[in-house]
Amino acid sequence: MTEAPRFLRPVTAPSANVGMAVTFETPLQLDCGRELAPFTVAYTTYGALNAHKSNAILICHALTGDQFVASDHPITGKPGWWTTMVGPGKPIDTDRFFVICANVIGGCMGSTGPAEINPETGKPWGLDFPLVTIRDMVRAQKRLVDHLGIDKLLAVIGGSMGGMQVLQWAASYPDCVRAVVPIACAARHSAQNIAFHEVGRQAIMADPDWKGGEYQAHDTRPSKGLAVARMAAHITYVSEMALQRKFGRNLQNRAALSFQFTPDFQIESYLHHQGATFVDRFDANSYLYITRAMDYFDLAADFDGVLANAFKQTPTRFCVISFTSDWLFPTSDSRAIVHALNAGGARVSFAEIVTDKGHDAFLLQEPELFAIVSGFLDGAAKARGLPVPRR
Amino acid sequence: MTEAPRFLRPVTAPSANVGMAVTFETPLQLDCGRELAPFTVAYTTYGALNAHKSNAILICHALTGDQFVASDHPITGKPGWWTTMVGPGKPIDTDRFFVICANVIGGCMGSTGPAEINPETGKPWGLDFPLVTIRDMVRAQKRLVDHLGIDKLLAVIGGSMGGMQVLQWAASYPDCVRAVVPIACAARHSAQNIAFHEVGRQAIMADPDWKGGEYQAHDTRPSKGLAVARMAAHITYVSEMALQRKFGRNLQNRAALSFQFTPDFQIESYLHHQGATFVDRFDANSYLYITRAMDYFDLAADFDGVLANAFKQTPTRFCVISFTSDWLFPTSDSRAIVHALNAGGARVSFAEIVTDKGHDAFLLQEPELFAIVSGFLDGAAKARGLPVPRR
Repeated sequence: MTEAPRFLRPVTAPSANVGMAVTFETPLQLDCGRELAPFTVAYTTYGALNAHKSNAILICHALTGDQFVASDHPITGKPGWWTTMVGPGKPIDTDRFFVICANVIGGCMGSTGPAEINPETGKPWGLDFPLVTIRDMVRAQKRLVDHLGIDKLLAVIGGSMGGMQVLQWAASYPDCVRAVVPIACAARHSAQNIAFHEVGRQAIMADPDWKGGEYQAHDTRPSKGLAVARMAAHITYVSEMALQRKFGRNLQNRAALSFQFTPDFQIESYLHHQGATFVDRFDANSYLYITRAMDYFDLAADFDGVLANAFKQTPTRFCVISFTSDWLFPTSDSRAIVHALNAGGARVSFAEIVTDKGHDAFLLQEPELFAIVSGFLDGAAKARGLPVPRR
Repeated sequence: MTEAPRFLRPVTAPSANVGMAVTFETPLQLDCGRELAPFTVAYTTYGALNAHKSNAILICHALTGDQFVASDHPITGKPGWWTTMVGPGKPIDTDRFFVICANVIGGCMGSTGPAEINPETGKPWGLDFPLVTIRDMVRAQKRLVDHLGIDKLLAVIGGSMGGMQVLQWAASYPDCVRAVVPIACAARHSAQNIAFHEVGRQAIMADPDWKGGEYQAHDTRPSKGLAVARMAAHITYVSEMALQRKFGRNLQNRAALSFQFTPDFQIESYLHHQGATFVDRFDANSYLYITRAMDYFDLAADFDGVLANAFKQTPTRFCVISFTSDWLFPTSDSRAIVHALNAGGARVSFAEIVTDKGHDAFLLQEPELFAIVSGFLDGAAKARGLPVPRR
């Protein structure tokens, strides 16, 4: 097991250890039947672990997220993806909690994934990389948490695919996590969501620069295909209402329609921007692998098709959160989780937050979300005997 | 003006004239400022025009539709796209009405479009073809209707982009149409819908076989890009509920997940099939042009931004129809049309049909839709003094 800093960039959150990585020699058993060894988990921590190691919170990132939750991104230089939620005095308060975030297995920010070198061949894995599942991602995170000497996490929190991992944590390791906050997610990926993912994958694989997944060897990048995948996905992250409010039919830098195929509308320029900036920071094969992991997610399937069995007699406290205008993971998905938890006799609170911001609301300024997470964590901290500040 | 049959295929609807085309030498003035001459309108008719020429109904097709409304498609051999609605004894009864359907300008089934030869260069138009609008499509249809010697249509009917043309007919030629039925459409394309179209266009233009639109000269076809565009669009034609009901997470011809990138799920195979069959029958540049025409559609913009002005003192009867589960053109879009019609003092009836089939419901078995169209056309026919059968 070796540990080394990966990214040498200025730290922006106080007391952060940005760009750490640990390599495990003991194989990771994967759901596909194969095993991964050695494998690396790249991660970042914020705040300090207390003497009892009882104040650790694991944050799970979404499809295109990474471990740079509250520190500048090493490639784009942009602020971390959840600085609204994580930091000193924020709902996930780094002055009080020891916050961990790891890049998922299959990712492209330092954890072992298809862009890394396959030790057996000395070449990038490409499509030889095994298909990983949400459960595999969580298995790798568990190894990291063990490595950090933490027996029991105070909480595991995440939105979207991060929320799927949160549910998997509660199902796989109920005794290792006191509280969980699955946000804007589902216990199984829907047909419509699989369909959108498949469109994205087909766009990538249709790009001749993808080269059957071996684009690194050919020194090419399937940027056009990946940009199309990102544009299609991005539409699903925002509500129809928010797009209409923000862009409507406004024209981009012009007074009249051009009668050409250049972007006339602001919404088009916005999408192009989303596609262009994404390809600079993300690996196309990782996109294939991680979308597939989400498609494969069906927590009930591992429990005789009964979701309640995944949480039977669970000691973990749940706070399930959804957004009214989220059509990618609508409230009905969260409600199905809550019903299963109720059936399993779990301690669960559920909040549907009224917002027109769509799925991405969990990443945005949503005071109600902050208040709920903050209050729930205070409760979990108090139950563990941690000091809770007066508010 | 010359007229010639284009497609030599068996006629499936009684008394049909399938695969006709008329070429006009007098230029078509386009909204972009350019003019098109000569230009061809390919069309099909069903039933017989009566002596007073008072029983003619024009059907306007959707984005990927064509004039083969109730007869076998000349390329795929499949039945016409609206055989549920059009035929002897059907709601649009070809025993009583003279039904016309024309391929839109910019299309690829015989009407002048980007795949046709530019008479000035002797080469296919490609991107030199002028950008056409919904109003331009309707202008071309008006020329056809004039050519057929019809002063006043009994009705104009269409769904989706067909509904946009229907609205444009009522706004452009109020004295030439007694009744209109816009189904599952909007008076202006939304930001979300423009976004989905732009994803499709980017997918096509990212395909190296597109060759800047000159793929015919290079003897290539951007099939992969067009298939991705179709797959993305197809998701929007169906409701989340219908996809879940029809496919859910069912696997395709396998008992367990493959842990590969081949299609595991039925929804994936279904999408692949949608993409593959589409590219056999549709021209990629036409897809660019027609989606752009829809994006540009904003009926109010031609009337000082006030939609009601488009229908001020209109003599036309309206029957506006939407579907509860249509998220591409939700009921709110139809309601906006109805409000404008009310403000303009028009005669309008409005029906929101409860169905889980999504946008494509207008093409499917929807008894309530058939009953409404049937009843509305009986009323229009009766008002015109045409015989109405007892039901």
